[in-house]
Amino acid sequence: MDVSWLVRDSILLYEGKAKKLFETDDPQIIRVKYLDQATALNGVRKDIVLGKALLNNQITALVFEQFKLKGIQSHFVEKISKHEQLVERLEMIPLEVVVRNVSAGSFAKRLAISEGQTLEFPVLEFYYKDDTLDDPIINDDHVKILKIATEQEITTIKHEAYKINQTLIELFKKIDIRLIDFKIEFGRRKDGTILLADEITPDTCRLWDEKTNDHLDKDVYRRNIGDIVPVYQEVLDRLEQRFN
Amino acid sequence: MDVSWLVRDSILLYEGKAKKLFETDDPQIIRVKYLDQATALNGVRKDIVLGKALLNNQITALVFEQFKLKGIQSHFVEKISKHEQLVERLEMIPLEVVVRNVSAGSFAKRLAISEGQTLEFPVLEFYYKDDTLDDPIINDDHVKILKIATEQEITTIKHEAYKINQTLIELFKKIDIRLIDFKIEFGRRKDGTILLADEITPDTCRLWDEKTNDHLDKDVYRRNIGDIVPVYQEVLDRLEQRFN
Repeated sequence: MDVSWLVRDSILLYEGKAKKLFETDDPQIIRVKYLDQATALNGVRKDIVLGKALLNNQITALVFEQFKLKGIQSHFVEKISKHEQLVERLEMIPLEVVVRNVSAGSFAKRLAISEGQTLEFPVLEFYYKDDTLDDPIINDDHVKILKIATEQEITTIKHEAYKINQTLIELFKKIDIRLIDFKIEFGRRKDGTILLADEITPDTCRLWDEKTNDHLDKDVYRRNIGDIVPVYQEVLDRLEQRFN
Repeated sequence: MDVSWLVRDSILLYEGKAKKLFETDDPQIIRVKYLDQATALNGVRKDIVLGKALLNNQITALVFEQFKLKGIQSHFVEKISKHEQLVERLEMIPLEVVVRNVSAGSFAKRLAISEGQTLEFPVLEFYYKDDTLDDPIINDDHVKILKIATEQEITTIKHEAYKINQTLIELFKKIDIRLIDFKIEFGRRKDGTILLADEITPDTCRLWDEKTNDHLDKDVYRRNIGDIVPVYQEVLDRLEQRFN
């Protein structure tokens, strides 16, 4: 499909920590341009990481395509270049939905559950996406009082998040990766439908090699373990080998 | 009732921030001794406040007695001296259950909901009672994964907390005080029954004078507004005038 008409005269809609969103000629469609940037500590630490954009754009495109085959709808429309993809324009819900299968990171520290301990059931958390407030963890009551989502929407979001977790676990298991935890975001269509949005990449998932327990995710950057480009490349290579 | 036999050879069971708990000759009964102490910032700030013990012992006794009349059971047995009361011995649940009717304090700051704003519905929060972790806010999943309480117990605790909130609102309304928020704790009887425990005092409630909005609670100490003894005395005086 020739989509060049969509991307001329692009107006920047939003600049995130790792991507820019542009208008297209179709008011329902947005162009996402992944950036060669990595951030940590809520943006306090920021670095240029050449090659990251290309990898995350491809990884999330591949994951969303796999999701579609499994009946999980998302905002993803299509990849249009190495760094860019088109997605459905949604009203974003300012919620970071985290699902954890294994204790790690802030969760391990906050609750003194040692990193690496498998959780008896997937633990779901909501964080209020607000940089000025440092994305505080919130509960269902807070989601409702802040009018982030209704009770019914919360139920839908949780249901989708658990389904996505199960699908992601199976997907990564096929490439010998253990899904520790991940963060997703949702948006609303005009008709009120809740749809998976944002991205699914090693920026937003904790992925451990099943055999070595090596980190194949952004913790490599957060914890200064090494260069993330070869690590993200490894994830993409395994995904492409298995699913393309 | 002569209870002197209960309190001889007392063994200290636990020392909290504002009270000491002692064994009695009855293994099912504990003696609580309120202390002339105030703390803030999770114990980092600590002061002797002469007269506070007496006030809190009397306030919480009166509230628990009123609760009993309204059908809300608690661990309270009886007041045995100005500073002491007997309570049922329970296995304490390490959860601070907070109910908020009006935005204030940490809630107001964390979510940027201005202090004094009435909430559309009572917001319930769980904090994991663990000083070494700084009592982190947690959600229902965390309560279950930490084995603090079962799903069924969570339901009971929430139900009780809302009922207590309604009863406390009405009780304080009768003495021209607005209940902003409060913290309660629960314990388990050997048969598994969940029972309200700990205390209900101006240390654990935010109480604003209905006409002046003056703080009649520990915020007077936390925020260095003045001396808490006359303030707590005011709460006790109003309670005694209305309910004794």
